[in-house]
Amino acid sequence: MYIEQLKNKLGSEKVSLEEKDLKQHSHDESPHEAIDPDVVCFPENRQDIKTILEIARTYKVPVTPYGIGSGLEGAAIPVHHGISINFNKMNQIIDFSPEDMTVTVQPGITRVQLNQFLKEYGLMFPIDPNIDASIGGMVATNASGTTGLRYGAMKDQILDLEIVLSDGTVIHTGTKAKKSSSGYLFTNLFVGSEGTLGIFTEITMKLYGIPEETVMARCTLDTLEVCAKASQIISLKGIPILRLELMDKESIVEMNRQNDYHFPEKHSLFLEFAGTKNAIIHDVELVKKLLHELGCEDWVVSRDPSEQQEIWRARKELSLAFVQEEGMDEVGADVCVPISRLPELLTYARQLIQETGLRGGVWGHVGDGNFHTLVLFDTRIKGEKELAESTNEALAKRAIEVGGTCTGEHGVGLGKIKYQEIEHGPAVRIMKGIKQLLDPTGILNPGKIF
Amino acid sequence: MYIEQLKNKLGSEKVSLEEKDLKQHSHDESPHEAIDPDVVCFPENRQDIKTILEIARTYKVPVTPYGIGSGLEGAAIPVHHGISINFNKMNQIIDFSPEDMTVTVQPGITRVQLNQFLKEYGLMFPIDPNIDASIGGMVATNASGTTGLRYGAMKDQILDLEIVLSDGTVIHTGTKAKKSSSGYLFTNLFVGSEGTLGIFTEITMKLYGIPEETVMARCTLDTLEVCAKASQIISLKGIPILRLELMDKESIVEMNRQNDYHFPEKHSLFLEFAGTKNAIIHDVELVKKLLHELGCEDWVVSRDPSEQQEIWRARKELSLAFVQEEGMDEVGADVCVPISRLPELLTYARQLIQETGLRGGVWGHVGDGNFHTLVLFDTRIKGEKELAESTNEALAKRAIEVGGTCTGEHGVGLGKIKYQEIEHGPAVRIMKGIKQLLDPTGILNPGKIF
Repeated sequence: MYIEQLKNKLGSEKVSLEEKDLKQHSHDESPHEAIDPDVVCFPENRQDIKTILEIARTYKVPVTPYGIGSGLEGAAIPVHHGISINFNKMNQIIDFSPEDMTVTVQPGITRVQLNQFLKEYGLMFPIDPNIDASIGGMVATNASGTTGLRYGAMKDQILDLEIVLSDGTVIHTGTKAKKSSSGYLFTNLFVGSEGTLGIFTEITMKLYGIPEETVMARCTLDTLEVCAKASQIISLKGIPILRLELMDKESIVEMNRQNDYHFPEKHSLFLEFAGTKNAIIHDVELVKKLLHELGCEDWVVSRDPSEQQEIWRARKELSLAFVQEEGMDEVGADVCVPISRLPELLTYARQLIQETGLRGGVWGHVGDGNFHTLVLFDTRIKGEKELAESTNEALAKRAIEVGGTCTGEHGVGLGKIKYQEIEHGPAVRIMKGIKQLLDPTGILNPGKIF
Repeated sequence: MYIEQLKNKLGSEKVSLEEKDLKQHSHDESPHEAIDPDVVCFPENRQDIKTILEIARTYKVPVTPYGIGSGLEGAAIPVHHGISINFNKMNQIIDFSPEDMTVTVQPGITRVQLNQFLKEYGLMFPIDPNIDASIGGMVATNASGTTGLRYGAMKDQILDLEIVLSDGTVIHTGTKAKKSSSGYLFTNLFVGSEGTLGIFTEITMKLYGIPEETVMARCTLDTLEVCAKASQIISLKGIPILRLELMDKESIVEMNRQNDYHFPEKHSLFLEFAGTKNAIIHDVELVKKLLHELGCEDWVVSRDPSEQQEIWRARKELSLAFVQEEGMDEVGADVCVPISRLPELLTYARQLIQETGLRGGVWGHVGDGNFHTLVLFDTRIKGEKELAESTNEALAKRAIEVGGTCTGEHGVGLGKIKYQEIEHGPAVRIMKGIKQLLDPTGILNPGKIF
């Protein structure tokens, strides 16, 4: 019945019941169980979103937004079926002001599409979650990634969101000015809300100049504690490094084994410097000196773009490297802790993996205290998935204990629901109150976050 | 009756009915009408705040937080009387982690007190609203000021707030980790909420390294449009300037007249560079070249700290300079617009003042599009105050029209209530819903923001 309504009001070309579409929208990149939506809609504009929500309200049908399906916590899985919204056709640049260094986009544009457009103006959008995600999805999960150390997370980029609320009201959360003290500052309430509070139709963001030059470096260090110390020291010195990524020995071994790389098989830091030529020379030398004082070995600097790309390809492929064997799957953690607690947490993570006897790696954006684990399990062996997941649970709880968070950048989705009370305590009641206020009928991505 | 309760439960030394205390808490630095509280409380800890709120709830008495009374929109004026909370005695540093570059403070500490403590560690808290405000007050108004260009506003500094809600629940809005995607990101909902959603008891903030060196410069330019262009160009080039302040000719004249300064009486930019020695030399030369291309004159660079202090003293004293004559008062605007609209808005502001025939100046933190006007009126001449205020109204409305905001940093308080619907439209309904959710009995600073 409601599907007929969708076809009538949107036009049947924007409504799909095809098996391949239902399957595509049933899952993301997480190991959470796939669940088909009843229907997939392909809206083209704000009015289409309003129409979808109107029908969803009338028939009390859940609505789940879907970017490119690269999420890692199941936020895009339509756990109560209903309508999946695909933003493919809402990928336009609505407004671009190079003088203001701002852009307004529809949520379906991906970050690579956006950066291709911006390039000729010498501008870029810097947040890089290590995949070509949609900007809408990145806002919805408060994504950050490898450049977070310098540029922060999505929440630090957004000036204004145009949002269709569940009752059909269209609101703006901000303005195009760089700052404001007017009203309540509630843009960030929607950043990271995973489609549970409203549907984005336009996103206005800050842009940045493309740095003059980029230099990469890598090195190895003896222990995970020393790797963490290195990131502490670099951050204390205020060196404006662009990326500072840790890969533990086990991750490097896996990387070399699956792809024909020959990185030294030790705990490694991959670094990227970006800025003016002069500043970079100075920063690279300073970091080299600091790292050598910590006993760093195998220091290699790469100024050649194609060599640089290879290093980052290796980093990007890391999580894939672990699961190329049939029957194997993975679970991953995403904790973020105060930098001062990083040495102990990294060591604890490594120890947890060792104790399971499973293969796994520890890596991450240690410059801002955010790191991941990846534990491989054999889907054919009973109990291995639970064993792998137990490492995540212990790590998430320890992270919260030391003043950190169960998710630095992946979001809550399905996988982190169980930590919400532990991390936020009585604040969860307020969060639920806000959800109730904005989505009284509960049609917006039900079953997520709480 | 409730005052007896306050004395019993807090101890009478924390409860004042003295005339001088009531008067002190009746006003801020704005021209809004002074209104006495019934009583002033001086809590010393979280429990005291809980006690005050419990009594306020029971007796349905309004509670208005008060920092140092330096607000410019009347947020601290207890318009419905009741309890004024003074945070003087809650000025402790609760936790300080130099490795994490974070600090947790009670709201009553002032930014100068905090920076005095941080100095020996080579660290600083950079937000500078041009007065020694309390950190709590700065959070409550989302203050920014002259360093906003580089460091952003208070909302960009806060990792976690401990808040006592109106029902006595104590919540934390974040963690001590640098980033998180857990729960709803609602720290910023409270930043700028002016005490209407809860009472801060602890504030955890980011810190920064003290720059190696500071260099100041000033110059004059022919028109306000060119001044705005200069700020556009500097921002486009990504030069990490610390302060970029405009003072129009009329402001400079006033400055020279009231204090024995001898600045060239033309539209002026005051600039401050901060960073490593090498980077600064490079940046100063680059900015000098850019400004000369725009026809800048009277370029003066100052490397001497005492000379620098004099320049900034002049800037700090500017608003006082205007009102040193008896019987005179002032009204000021605080708009922020996209940088691309700054040339027309600055010109419009100047023209509005001219049309009133009153004395007044235009200045501000033009690097981020935020500027102020100040219009002097004679309190003894009927209609002059209204005439002065009409410039504010026209300017605020124009700022909103061009995609900006009615208040860049002063907050809504009493003075900007009338623009909330114009600026935020249907979003105001959501903001009011959040207020209702968090303060159902309406005891928290009633009469502000909406």
